[in-house]
Amino acid sequence: MLILLELDTPREDIEKIKEKIIAKGCNAHEIPGSSKLAIGITGSTSNLKEDDFRIMKSVQEVVRVSHKYKLVSREMKKEDTVIDINGSKVGGKELTIIAGPCSVENHDQIFKIAEILKNLGIQFLRAGAFKPRSSPYSFQGLKEEGLDLLAQVKKEFGLNIVTELLNPYNTKEVAEVADIIQIGARNMQNFALLEEVGKTGKTVLLKRGLSATVEDLLLSAEYIAAQNNFNIILCERGIRTFETSTRNTLDLNSVPVVKKYSHLPILVDPSHGIGIGEKVPAMAMAGIAAGADGLMIEVHHKPEEALSDGFQSLAPDTFENLLNKLKQLAPVVDKTLG
Amino acid sequence: MLILLELDTPREDIEKIKEKIIAKGCNAHEIPGSSKLAIGITGSTSNLKEDDFRIMKSVQEVVRVSHKYKLVSREMKKEDTVIDINGSKVGGKELTIIAGPCSVENHDQIFKIAEILKNLGIQFLRAGAFKPRSSPYSFQGLKEEGLDLLAQVKKEFGLNIVTELLNPYNTKEVAEVADIIQIGARNMQNFALLEEVGKTGKTVLLKRGLSATVEDLLLSAEYIAAQNNFNIILCERGIRTFETSTRNTLDLNSVPVVKKYSHLPILVDPSHGIGIGEKVPAMAMAGIAAGADGLMIEVHHKPEEALSDGFQSLAPDTFENLLNKLKQLAPVVDKTLG
Amino acid sequence: MLILLELDTPREDIEKIKEKIIAKGCNAHEIPGSSKLAIGITGSTSNLKEDDFRIMKSVQEVVRVSHKYKLVSREMKKEDTVIDINGSKVGGKELTIIAGPCSVENHDQIFKIAEILKNLGIQFLRAGAFKPRSSPYSFQGLKEEGLDLLAQVKKEFGLNIVTELLNPYNTKEVAEVADIIQIGARNMQNFALLEEVGKTGKTVLLKRGLSATVEDLLLSAEYIAAQNNFNIILCERGIRTFETSTRNTLDLNSVPVVKKYSHLPILVDPSHGIGIGEKVPAMAMAGIAAGADGLMIEVHHKPEEALSDGFQSLAPDTFENLLNKLKQLAPVVDKTLG
Amino acid sequence: MLILLELDTPREDIEKIKEKIIAKGCNAHEIPGSSKLAIGITGSTSNLKEDDFRIMKSVQEVVRVSHKYKLVSREMKKEDTVIDINGSKVGGKELTIIAGPCSVENHDQIFKIAEILKNLGIQFLRAGAFKPRSSPYSFQGLKEEGLDLLAQVKKEFGLNIVTELLNPYNTKEVAEVADIIQIGARNMQNFALLEEVGKTGKTVLLKRGLSATVEDLLLSAEYIAAQNNFNIILCERGIRTFETSTRNTLDLNSVPVVKKYSHLPILVDPSHGIGIGEKVPAMAMAGIAAGADGLMIEVHHKPEEALSDGFQSLAPDTFENLLNKLKQLAPVVDKTLG
Repeated sequence: MLILLELDTPREDIEKIKEKIIAKGCNAHEIPGSSKLAIGITGSTSNLKEDDFRIMKSVQEVVRVSHKYKLVSREMKKEDTVIDINGSKVGGKELTIIAGPCSVENHDQIFKIAEILKNLGIQFLRAGAFKPRSSPYSFQGLKEEGLDLLAQVKKEFGLNIVTELLNPYNTKEVAEVADIIQIGARNMQNFALLEEVGKTGKTVLLKRGLSATVEDLLLSAEYIAAQNNFNIILCERGIRTFETSTRNTLDLNSVPVVKKYSHLPILVDPSHGIGIGEKVPAMAMAGIAAGADGLMIEVHHKPEEALSDGFQSLAPDTFENLLNKLKQLAPVVDKTLG
Repeated sequence: MLILLELDTPREDIEKIKEKIIAKGCNAHEIPGSSKLAIGITGSTSNLKEDDFRIMKSVQEVVRVSHKYKLVSREMKKEDTVIDINGSKVGGKELTIIAGPCSVENHDQIFKIAEILKNLGIQFLRAGAFKPRSSPYSFQGLKEEGLDLLAQVKKEFGLNIVTELLNPYNTKEVAEVADIIQIGARNMQNFALLEEVGKTGKTVLLKRGLSATVEDLLLSAEYIAAQNNFNIILCERGIRTFETSTRNTLDLNSVPVVKKYSHLPILVDPSHGIGIGEKVPAMAMAGIAAGADGLMIEVHHKPEEALSDGFQSLAPDTFENLLNKLKQLAPVVDKTLG
Repeated sequence: MLILLELDTPREDIEKIKEKIIAKGCNAHEIPGSSKLAIGITGSTSNLKEDDFRIMKSVQEVVRVSHKYKLVSREMKKEDTVIDINGSKVGGKELTIIAGPCSVENHDQIFKIAEILKNLGIQFLRAGAFKPRSSPYSFQGLKEEGLDLLAQVKKEFGLNIVTELLNPYNTKEVAEVADIIQIGARNMQNFALLEEVGKTGKTVLLKRGLSATVEDLLLSAEYIAAQNNFNIILCERGIRTFETSTRNTLDLNSVPVVKKYSHLPILVDPSHGIGIGEKVPAMAMAGIAAGADGLMIEVHHKPEEALSDGFQSLAPDTFENLLNKLKQLAPVVDKTLG
Repeated sequence: MLILLELDTPREDIEKIKEKIIAKGCNAHEIPGSSKLAIGITGSTSNLKEDDFRIMKSVQEVVRVSHKYKLVSREMKKEDTVIDINGSKVGGKELTIIAGPCSVENHDQIFKIAEILKNLGIQFLRAGAFKPRSSPYSFQGLKEEGLDLLAQVKKEFGLNIVTELLNPYNTKEVAEVADIIQIGARNMQNFALLEEVGKTGKTVLLKRGLSATVEDLLLSAEYIAAQNNFNIILCERGIRTFETSTRNTLDLNSVPVVKKYSHLPILVDPSHGIGIGEKVPAMAMAGIAAGADGLMIEVHHKPEEALSDGFQSLAPDTFENLLNKLKQLAPVVDKTLG
């Protein structure tokens, strides 16, 4: 951290700042310049806040130069994290494909889709039992009944289940069924929920918030890691911008950025990222080409009848075509698929 | 809602669309044009989703023309909602000023600030016991101990307490102390929490999310109202944009927009909205000039020693100067203060 | 500027960095810390680019700490710039109100509006002869004929004329008629045009671009000032965000930020800033309350018949009511009006 | 276009609206519903503005349902536009790779880079002679001298030249040297320049503005096409969002969106799109995987010595590695390279 002062700052003010730095267990270094006086801070600056100093007399600017996250950072752990989920690996050479409907709608629907996906070699089924909806009048999911259906499907097809946790009250029941607990974009900074899900020890799929920076995302992951749970999968699913021709703006820049700063695996969700079914395959390909560890894609056997997100879901045949393209793409980016 | 088709759409496709409309309990009207065929939908379209139709064969575009919220809309209730909190009115002619520190830090701090505010005629004290922080290593609040201190302060000074609820597990204890329960920006779409707080029947202060549109904000308010709790105060606190010279971009446009579409009162939080203490008074004045029902402002007796948000907090004398300015401004916008 | 390196950076790399700093005429200061090595740069760093160093071996981070603009900065000139335009002052105690239609439409229209404004005490008439329109099929202005009409109106009513320059080819003719030459938001970074308009010596009204930061705006003003033309008026007119209920997001935070960092006057354009006529007065009031030096407002004698921007224009009676409110507001913020 | 009214709208208001529609040469259709009255407008609605009606009495909402661009739309021309530039095709099966330094710096630099690129099989050399820079104190390019060097390089190596036009005054000289004239992001809505460049008949590379929607981009292309110049190449180069870890947010969603609505080719510029050299290859791959017709990439033989944009430039060996990867990727997305 660096503090900038005017050249003619009174000695008294300078000393007060240095005292505060030392009181916080760090070291202060005066660097006189030709137009400003700088005070460099070294030591464990992670407990310091820029504002602690910004508010002090004579201070013109405070600049932080290191990241606030620790456990999830590449500095803490150089090699990629690979998570083993019942034998399927996330974060390694093999691409992870999580597919399924937005929500569990009924027995026939979820069994039908599970069967299709199983036959396509998919190992992870996504489907929401609890659904976050911006309107209270939209379909909110089958809730406990949905979890029961997921448990049955899991038993029948041996698929790993990915499903969302919305409410701390449901943590136990969701953790019983889910192999990966999803934290949705709107809850990315629901810190109470992050701590709760961290404590379960289950693998967590953490989706980026609509207006979250990559640093925010990594800080939210840090909340989970701080519970001694390192089984975290990040997910880029689009951010909110001024563009109106797509549902969100899929920010694939985040993929190489996360790969540089963190050891955690990152998936891309092109379904939410663009929000238009016919354009999902293009963005799925782009996500893998950008270096993602896999995809999370909405697939429905009858998109036009889906109770939610049908418009952005792929029909089975389109999904199969995409898988074939992905199989060709994988070796180009030093990955494997299927 | 309006559905647009190509002029040469096969009769069969048109009929399928009309059947779906009728099956949903609405009416369909064909409107042939010179370059497109439109189908207008009338009746109670609130249960329809654009995507239900967007995904159908031959459909080119689906356009929604009415709002998705009901209970909080101006159409439902023409006159402004005025909420009575122990005799203090929010949403009427008198401006509401909620002031206090970001968080309860200790007995001396909260009692000192409460005394100052009481002497300035303030009726609402804000202070967090549970604090949402983007980093797990930042100060998270005194929690239960903070609530206890707030209860003491309330008893001592007769101030109404505004404090944040983060976790459904703490609902009961927060509701016991708080006169207004705050839902923070990061939890604006934490629907589980919205339902929980709605059920308490307590007045809720709902802050706009960092990337929430005004419509999103009103839909979140609708979640609370759907629990038969109409004691809702909205709060504009800035959105996230590309601008980096301020913490957030205070979107005062939202004030006249909310006033047009909803009967609920709206406050402005200039402290988070610009994030720089010395510039808070300018934005506080602007908020009231834009037509807000009041302000929520961070005030600390020693901003430079605050455990959180000191940089954007006002010292008591600056706050008092602002109050004097606000008293002059109030009659210009047909309001009163103090 | 500050350069951060790993603690174990080879001596060779460090020396190369220091050599480059010295070669650029600055001084280098090594600051060893407990986890990083910092090199502080002092001297005239305005010619340095962060990327010059960011790209060098072993460099982890480069941080700039001072602004890139000079002439328009508050550091260069402490007191506010007040511009005298034929006896009317912009930037002083008296609020500046620029009003008029989006575009000159015909003789009757511009004379009628000019008469109304003159009678209301307005000294600055805005009206476009050349109009920038996002579609080539929209009305592009009367061009030369529009300038002629403005010249006639100026002679008849003695109003100062504010009109936009779009194309360097038209500089001479626009400069002959205009008392203030407007550079529109879409041309804020049309540097060729900025230099051209700077050379005229005329007062320039520079509107903030749709995605320009305040720093970008000040850098564009610097382009004009670099031509030895300090008669620059800045104008906040809204930025582009995800919000869709308003045309733009009026960023009033920019007002106190500009006031802090620059000596130039700043006006607010609430007409474009919210884009909805009925809500313009609220935002006009907010702009002045935030500390702006004045307003630029679209007024049309028959908004519903305007060839452009009628929807955001005020009718004369609404504008008159607003002026009355502004007269009450002015003394509250230590300004005067009329 | 659709106009919505209250059910109890007076007959007189309805008739006025219908008269206005008919006066504009369109047809009006009344569609009575159970809660609103709609008036559907058919015919050539491209001359209508929503605001023409929005401002009329009793009108609640006006909704536009068709695009405002014509000539560049897929509706106007179903098949992809393929542009032939001295035998090299842009927009067809073969991927287009435009490479080169940000700016022409001197004879040795541009000849050295041209030679490297030529040897790698590149057919298009990019390099700026006129540079738009946000600060007037940054390097602005060699200008005329730079154009001369480009002319020499073109003669020597037979490379097609891509260079930017900033100022209408330089149109002739730029058009003489350039095979493709670039219009930069900051000038995307400099309509005077668009018309000027349209008239040259030369191929134009139009970069998306920092805050331009895809529709804005296509409308700007329409300005060029309206000059009877259909040789237009679009370029996605990143938009401005709240994310600060990258220079811009590369919006690859725009690729399939443009492909759907327009027949024009689109390239991706990952250098500006992410702004960090080491991450450019990942985004280049992603761009092609998303379906782009090619790439525009900054390459410099000594990035660390570049006068501008060195930080985001690729060194020759990195660029060669990327080309090899792209050659493997091309057939996966039904393209060819080299």
